[in-house]
Amino acid sequence: MEEVRNQQIILQNYVNGFPKESDMLLITSSAINLNLPEASNAVLLKNLYLSCDPYMRGRMSKSQGSYFDSFTPGSPIGGLGVAKVVDSTHSNFKKGDLVWGGIRWEEYSIINDPQILFKIEDTDVPLSYYTGILGMPGLTAYVGFYEICAPKKGEYVFVSAASGAVGQLVGQFAKLSGCYVVGSAGTKEKVDLLKNKFGFDEAFNYKEEQDLDAALKRYFPDGIDIYFENVGGKMLEAVLSNMRINGRISVCGMISQYNLEQGEGVHNLSQLIAKDVRMQGFLVSRYFHMLPKYFEMIMPLIKQGKICYIEDFAEGLESAPAALVGLFSGRNVGKQVVAVARE
Amino acid sequence: MEEVRNQQIILQNYVNGFPKESDMLLITSSAINLNLPEASNAVLLKNLYLSCDPYMRGRMSKSQGSYFDSFTPGSPIGGLGVAKVVDSTHSNFKKGDLVWGGIRWEEYSIINDPQILFKIEDTDVPLSYYTGILGMPGLTAYVGFYEICAPKKGEYVFVSAASGAVGQLVGQFAKLSGCYVVGSAGTKEKVDLLKNKFGFDEAFNYKEEQDLDAALKRYFPDGIDIYFENVGGKMLEAVLSNMRINGRISVCGMISQYNLEQGEGVHNLSQLIAKDVRMQGFLVSRYFHMLPKYFEMIMPLIKQGKICYIEDFAEGLESAPAALVGLFSGRNVGKQVVAVARE
Repeated sequence: MEEVRNQQIILQNYVNGFPKESDMLLITSSAINLNLPEASNAVLLKNLYLSCDPYMRGRMSKSQGSYFDSFTPGSPIGGLGVAKVVDSTHSNFKKGDLVWGGIRWEEYSIINDPQILFKIEDTDVPLSYYTGILGMPGLTAYVGFYEICAPKKGEYVFVSAASGAVGQLVGQFAKLSGCYVVGSAGTKEKVDLLKNKFGFDEAFNYKEEQDLDAALKRYFPDGIDIYFENVGGKMLEAVLSNMRINGRISVCGMISQYNLEQGEGVHNLSQLIAKDVRMQGFLVSRYFHMLPKYFEMIMPLIKQGKICYIEDFAEGLESAPAALVGLFSGRNVGKQVVAVARE
Repeated sequence: MEEVRNQQIILQNYVNGFPKESDMLLITSSAINLNLPEASNAVLLKNLYLSCDPYMRGRMSKSQGSYFDSFTPGSPIGGLGVAKVVDSTHSNFKKGDLVWGGIRWEEYSIINDPQILFKIEDTDVPLSYYTGILGMPGLTAYVGFYEICAPKKGEYVFVSAASGAVGQLVGQFAKLSGCYVVGSAGTKEKVDLLKNKFGFDEAFNYKEEQDLDAALKRYFPDGIDIYFENVGGKMLEAVLSNMRINGRISVCGMISQYNLEQGEGVHNLSQLIAKDVRMQGFLVSRYFHMLPKYFEMIMPLIKQGKICYIEDFAEGLESAPAALVGLFSGRNVGKQVVAVARE
């Protein structure tokens, strides 16, 4: 009966406003037995990579209409990640399998209801990719861009938070579709990445623009056909004033709003009428059935080097709180991952 | 060479805030010759019914991204209406034809470019209906409800400004589609109409509700599938908090916002994400090609008495300014029409 320690990151208390590292705590819980009881129907995981995602902010507040249930103070943070099956009494998984999906922020997780645990079939790519381009953010970019915006060649596409896990893919999908694409980000380094690494036609630092409306008019003198919305608030307002007729807005996230007591108001929604604009929100968890279709498209692109994907690694479970908090000040460059263990 | 006087309603100056009667003026312009010059390519109309529509407010301001061009101070108000062709040098029209479409607020209009003038084929219905149920508002209700919201039997539908020209039709379309429909309006009289005349399942007076969110929760304990948006602002915010998964919002108008210096902010757009909600704006002028299809549906319903339609008549061109202004305080009950002449 082999037992190991199990360090965990727990939520200390519900969060108001910007989350701080001290809202979370690294603890060593009681030791965990590496063999599951025979009577169980569960999977025991050794966690390798944790995914830091903006939607997690909502789960740190006492539930008030967030997309998902709140975390429980005193219990480990839940999230997506990549893990290795150490033991399994569940018929879908066996020892040695690699999986991605819903895990917890700890060294080992026992998952009793492995409904959102997907077996990793292709290991010919970095395993951490299953927290990003081959996981939830990748599918998000795919669904939000292709399914919801139905891009046509030559259309004008704008992506906010464009160097993030989702945005960097949307921009590249737009180029693959023959669109003109502009991204916004919050540092010069990120703007350079967008233009030189991800192949955006143009990019700008929104923090350096006094007038977002004027900035968009500069990059889109003929207006925007497709907006991939990651930030909300003032940026959305500026975009609404610059949409073209029959424009589409895929509402993926609104990270600028998550830490505000009350969201910023959007004052010009009547632009939707003037331009016959469609604004469609979506939760990627309702589109997991499309993963096989997405993989069919994305795997060859990755293997042929036709798509570029940048990750930002934090090392060790202890670095996870800072990594998560950093998302909301834009500290990460590319997809924020926490490497708990490499194998 | 018969000449007649031509009274007109002109815009005095661009309007800020709520329009007043005194923003418009009744004048007698130079007399008009009832025979068009042979060299022209125009239609001379005797105007019968003028349509008062909320979108006209935008045209009273100096253009700032309204849907249509501004009116010109000193010139007659432009709008939709029903008229009789008095003379025509245009091949599509002949003397005696009845038409509806783009005219001006005056006794006689010379239309040089009759692109949005439609010949009235069926006179077996009240002619004034072509300003409403058989005109732009009718097509608006049809497009916004059937085309944009794609209703399914049993769905929960909410309509704001529900006793207006568009709303009263949307509610009845919803019942014809087997939906449950609730409407809001601003007086007890209108609420009674909604329930007793138009067949809404429920209706409430939004002015008597302290908390619109609570009101909607009362009428839609299971949430709203379809919202037909006529008002914007606080009502939209309350609706967003009560949408169901895969809900649809047809954005037809935002009358509560038209007279404000800056629109009220909508603070909870992230609800679009949480519920996979689609919000689609539209301008009915882009759907005029669907008129024949709409007429095919609506004409039998009218003639069989299966649809109810209420108009509010103001008599005489001189009553037009008050009638238009009244839209924005909700004075009208049903479609506001100005009867300039009856034949």
